[in-house]
Amino acid sequence: MEGKMKVAVMTGIGQMAFEEREIPKPAANEVLVRLEYVGICGSDLHYYETGAIGSYVVEPPFVLGHEPGGVVVEVGEQVTHLKVGDKVALEPGKTCGHCAFCREGKYNLCPDVIFFATPPVDGVFQEYVAHEADLCFKIPDSMTTLEAALIEPLAVGFHAAIQGDAHLGQKAVVMGAGCIGLVSMMALLARGVSEVCVVDIMEKRLNKALELGATKVINGAKENVEEAICQWTDGKGADLVIETAGTQITTTQAIRVAKKGSNLVLVGYSKTGEMTLPMSLVLDKELTFKTVFRYRHIYPLAIEAVASGKVNLKGIVTDIFPLEHVQKAMDYSVSNKADIVKAVIQIKK
Amino acid sequence: MEGKMKVAVMTGIGQMAFEEREIPKPAANEVLVRLEYVGICGSDLHYYETGAIGSYVVEPPFVLGHEPGGVVVEVGEQVTHLKVGDKVALEPGKTCGHCAFCREGKYNLCPDVIFFATPPVDGVFQEYVAHEADLCFKIPDSMTTLEAALIEPLAVGFHAAIQGDAHLGQKAVVMGAGCIGLVSMMALLARGVSEVCVVDIMEKRLNKALELGATKVINGAKENVEEAICQWTDGKGADLVIETAGTQITTTQAIRVAKKGSNLVLVGYSKTGEMTLPMSLVLDKELTFKTVFRYRHIYPLAIEAVASGKVNLKGIVTDIFPLEHVQKAMDYSVSNKADIVKAVIQIKK
Amino acid sequence: MEGKMKVAVMTGIGQMAFEEREIPKPAANEVLVRLEYVGICGSDLHYYETGAIGSYVVEPPFVLGHEPGGVVVEVGEQVTHLKVGDKVALEPGKTCGHCAFCREGKYNLCPDVIFFATPPVDGVFQEYVAHEADLCFKIPDSMTTLEAALIEPLAVGFHAAIQGDAHLGQKAVVMGAGCIGLVSMMALLARGVSEVCVVDIMEKRLNKALELGATKVINGAKENVEEAICQWTDGKGADLVIETAGTQITTTQAIRVAKKGSNLVLVGYSKTGEMTLPMSLVLDKELTFKTVFRYRHIYPLAIEAVASGKVNLKGIVTDIFPLEHVQKAMDYSVSNKADIVKAVIQIKK
Amino acid sequence: MEGKMKVAVMTGIGQMAFEEREIPKPAANEVLVRLEYVGICGSDLHYYETGAIGSYVVEPPFVLGHEPGGVVVEVGEQVTHLKVGDKVALEPGKTCGHCAFCREGKYNLCPDVIFFATPPVDGVFQEYVAHEADLCFKIPDSMTTLEAALIEPLAVGFHAAIQGDAHLGQKAVVMGAGCIGLVSMMALLARGVSEVCVVDIMEKRLNKALELGATKVINGAKENVEEAICQWTDGKGADLVIETAGTQITTTQAIRVAKKGSNLVLVGYSKTGEMTLPMSLVLDKELTFKTVFRYRHIYPLAIEAVASGKVNLKGIVTDIFPLEHVQKAMDYSVSNKADIVKAVIQIKK
Repeated sequence: MEGKMKVAVMTGIGQMAFEEREIPKPAANEVLVRLEYVGICGSDLHYYETGAIGSYVVEPPFVLGHEPGGVVVEVGEQVTHLKVGDKVALEPGKTCGHCAFCREGKYNLCPDVIFFATPPVDGVFQEYVAHEADLCFKIPDSMTTLEAALIEPLAVGFHAAIQGDAHLGQKAVVMGAGCIGLVSMMALLARGVSEVCVVDIMEKRLNKALELGATKVINGAKENVEEAICQWTDGKGADLVIETAGTQITTTQAIRVAKKGSNLVLVGYSKTGEMTLPMSLVLDKELTFKTVFRYRHIYPLAIEAVASGKVNLKGIVTDIFPLEHVQKAMDYSVSNKADIVKAVIQIKK
Repeated sequence: MEGKMKVAVMTGIGQMAFEEREIPKPAANEVLVRLEYVGICGSDLHYYETGAIGSYVVEPPFVLGHEPGGVVVEVGEQVTHLKVGDKVALEPGKTCGHCAFCREGKYNLCPDVIFFATPPVDGVFQEYVAHEADLCFKIPDSMTTLEAALIEPLAVGFHAAIQGDAHLGQKAVVMGAGCIGLVSMMALLARGVSEVCVVDIMEKRLNKALELGATKVINGAKENVEEAICQWTDGKGADLVIETAGTQITTTQAIRVAKKGSNLVLVGYSKTGEMTLPMSLVLDKELTFKTVFRYRHIYPLAIEAVASGKVNLKGIVTDIFPLEHVQKAMDYSVSNKADIVKAVIQIKK
Repeated sequence: MEGKMKVAVMTGIGQMAFEEREIPKPAANEVLVRLEYVGICGSDLHYYETGAIGSYVVEPPFVLGHEPGGVVVEVGEQVTHLKVGDKVALEPGKTCGHCAFCREGKYNLCPDVIFFATPPVDGVFQEYVAHEADLCFKIPDSMTTLEAALIEPLAVGFHAAIQGDAHLGQKAVVMGAGCIGLVSMMALLARGVSEVCVVDIMEKRLNKALELGATKVINGAKENVEEAICQWTDGKGADLVIETAGTQITTTQAIRVAKKGSNLVLVGYSKTGEMTLPMSLVLDKELTFKTVFRYRHIYPLAIEAVASGKVNLKGIVTDIFPLEHVQKAMDYSVSNKADIVKAVIQIKK
Repeated sequence: MEGKMKVAVMTGIGQMAFEEREIPKPAANEVLVRLEYVGICGSDLHYYETGAIGSYVVEPPFVLGHEPGGVVVEVGEQVTHLKVGDKVALEPGKTCGHCAFCREGKYNLCPDVIFFATPPVDGVFQEYVAHEADLCFKIPDSMTTLEAALIEPLAVGFHAAIQGDAHLGQKAVVMGAGCIGLVSMMALLARGVSEVCVVDIMEKRLNKALELGATKVINGAKENVEEAICQWTDGKGADLVIETAGTQITTTQAIRVAKKGSNLVLVGYSKTGEMTLPMSLVLDKELTFKTVFRYRHIYPLAIEAVASGKVNLKGIVTDIFPLEHVQKAMDYSVSNKADIVKAVIQIKK
């Protein structure tokens, strides 16, 4: 497809602008996707607010956004499983396929991954993207491209649930009711976990959790989290805890409420990179810490879970902004965390 | 057996004395064991130095010691698998058998465990003990009661190796070359781990590690641990790390040297109960923390490993003290950590 | 409780009669349960028809029935977790608690198990039974004692699903739509399995499967099972197969429809004890055969799954017979397999 | 490298001849290996004797042999990890890298595998082969190219041991002391299995097993296998059984001697493709059947096990034939199974 497309670029900390770029040409094993929705994620906000995450530093102009949903408009000649018109969810990370991690199935740990919106690789706050066809997953007609965009964070939630070996019969706790906490909760329920209690300090987020299926919510600003969960589990402790808030307080609470011998899944990154934790208690309880770095082999089952109604994915969206208002969307997401649960950029052609 | 026995009791912080107590009568499901050796463990020293570990507080007079080896001298009437004269290794913890943990096989997590030398339960720095026969494991004639006493710490080492899924083909690192570090190393080798590198800052302990089979040792006081291991693993990182030193520095090193996606087994308790750790790095590398709280179902295989020559258990002993010198043994163990690797009390009748 | 109770006994092959026996006295760790429903299981029918299963031979008079639900009417003095009036589901097998299997958590493999209706241990086609309180699981008020009785077969279904590692994202096949096939299907769905196809040759059973949640059914007498499943899975094969019919044909079909590298769970016992199977194909596909012998640690989660509406357990019942008509119930169950899916004996006081 | 090379081809059932073919040119990601040894495997013999295995039919002229060891003589331009002069063990199967099996780590199940000596893909009974560099594993100087050739069958043995979760503390049984039985036994010992008993009916093979480390051997033609193993395990049964003989008798024995709840690894293919087995006993004992189809991710650890002396790989070789005598080697291997344990073709330039 010839022509130019509009691209939202980060030009500096807290600054967005627009550029025109050539519409990319898909390679033989790629497809060209017309993007319709791209979610805004915590990492996008972090780059936007600080210019870096760890050793990944933004060199402006930089394109943010890595949760894309859209429609296939061109198909590379080697591609057989997609056709023009297919709605797709894009898995953002292209991996090498050759290293031990890739070959052993843990491609999310590939050291040479090319991942949308992780510097120096541009993201997808733009009208089109060419992407490896194997990383574009067709969604059924009954699903929308908005849901397709949300498959990315949902995949994180499912990876957390799978790492934790979540299953029927368990009483689980999710610390944090932001986007990742909510998708983790929904992933737990889809996997058959019997009851999920969500903990946060923002009322709006807790209401969203209840709306989306939480068995119980606890406002940590108003209640003693440990006592409340102790009571909820008849003193036994939680069978599984997924920690998504990324704070020392919530991780410590997670450790305290977990039943002996259980799994604690860490998903949330702390602001400073470090946490001071009661590690002797972790040993006394013989807890296992599982961690989550993105996801692997999850897109098909996540799409299936949404298509079958097991997960009310669009239910997490609280705000939609047109691409033209991307600056406002980013600023609002940064400053109104108490009101926004999940914001998504809509890209109309 | 009628009569009195000598018992070494802790009468206060840093203070040992002797009492005479009735030789216990074994119940129908118990045996009476004449103790020949009892190892001195870090927890015994900690109670001795500070009077408590967490909420467990010593109420003098209190008997320390929980690593017992001896000879059966009386057999309760229901006991069929042991006879007078059998040499045995005693597993110190008597569990309830009814709780979910016990029934599901994780008896080490039984909340009602009765464990030698964990207040208020007396330990075994004494001449005889009556103990549940199911917890007394016969050792072959080729093994000594000294080795029997050391099965207890070796069990911790094996539990660490098993929690970490240690196996052939791996390059493993053990942080700490004290008793637990050494038994962990020997457990790794017995399980077929290809190469084990041991890290410590005390030269004597590192020499002991080499003597007992370490592929390589690193003195953290003289070398940069991370660089040395990076080199040793051709930049790939360790396939498995067992942390036994219980410090923030060594745990942080463990995190840094572990390969992405690998297991890190935490065995060592920190002095303060807390550690400040680079948790974001743990997530970036998608590491799994497994922990160790004692052991379960390990005595038979540990005894087998020693009997078959796979583990040179008595090789860890550096000091033997007669029961009469228990005060000196405890004081020396507290103050000469650089010279003592493993001290054991010998009890002669 | 003093007095006599009515007991239905098997007096010979195909022969039932009634006796009066003393109402049992519960021991200190037992409860006395007034039975309200007892399911009829394939093993009961097999003993009834042939007098033996393997080396277990019926010595008349023998009481059949091991799927009991009832109400607690007396509580032994050591019992704290149950009270008079509680509705309970009884787990039939009392195990020793001491052998390696029991201690390691696999109590279903205890060689000394005392199991209702496995000769020489009497079953529970009677008005009362005294049973270990730890093996009586309280059900919530919202559940009935009919459902309580069906927890036993449901536990088998869950054990099959757990052995097979059933989870969200899978397309599973269940061979056989008898009671065990149906509970296996419902267990799969409760654990989040995305789609379940049930195969049988009896139309009534297949209709029951659809009614209870099967995604699809195949009548093996009318369709080619392998082609139908190949089509249903777009040529990939089933992610998991649970075989409950116990025939060489269905087990061979299971092997043929399973995807490479997948789990095949064998639950059904063949009539002759033997099967001729295409084992080279099993190796070519690197399949894993998991098997099921009763269940372990499942009653609480099974009760929870029914109480929360995840499993429509009473939906499997097609026939209820009063205890007085037990002979008719047994004969009818033997001769009308095409019409009966699950028959249950009702015991009114 | 220019020029011709000698190739041994199968021209019909029981018939070998020689051809001259062009020395292959390595592609950019390949290396050219001068073959020094190629093992003769059961599958080679089966094609030679019958012309087919299942649906794989030999179309003469066809090259057999898939257990190659040699020296790199040319390196494709993209290859960085190998250089001319390196001794290498070649993993025979080139897989697609794109299918779900490849991406999830189970590349041995890739439907599009190109495998030496599996029709229509030629094997390597020839002087040179060009092969993907990623599938050529460098061996240390201390190892020989004869050992390199044997890594292929050893990989099967390790895969069997890993599938069975073989570990320290177990008493394992290996049915069959042919090449695969012996490498399975050595793999078990390398993984730390405490004791291995090997069963066969050929005295020479049993002696070889003892020579290579078997704890015990049983001649099934002279002793009752089940009773002997029952005695050897004090009535408990084997913790793990690896079945490599591929017969109904030995598989049935394996089922009978396995401890309840244990793993039985099936490696041996039966002549007819089918076996009649006591499946009800398998269920009563709740056994798990794991199977082996080639191997995955094993070459590096297998090489390491040989290099470190854990496995006496060359010890399995009983006969070496020069390439010129390949007909005699094949005929002799077919007709003298009682004398030959492992025959290898030597290729001198």
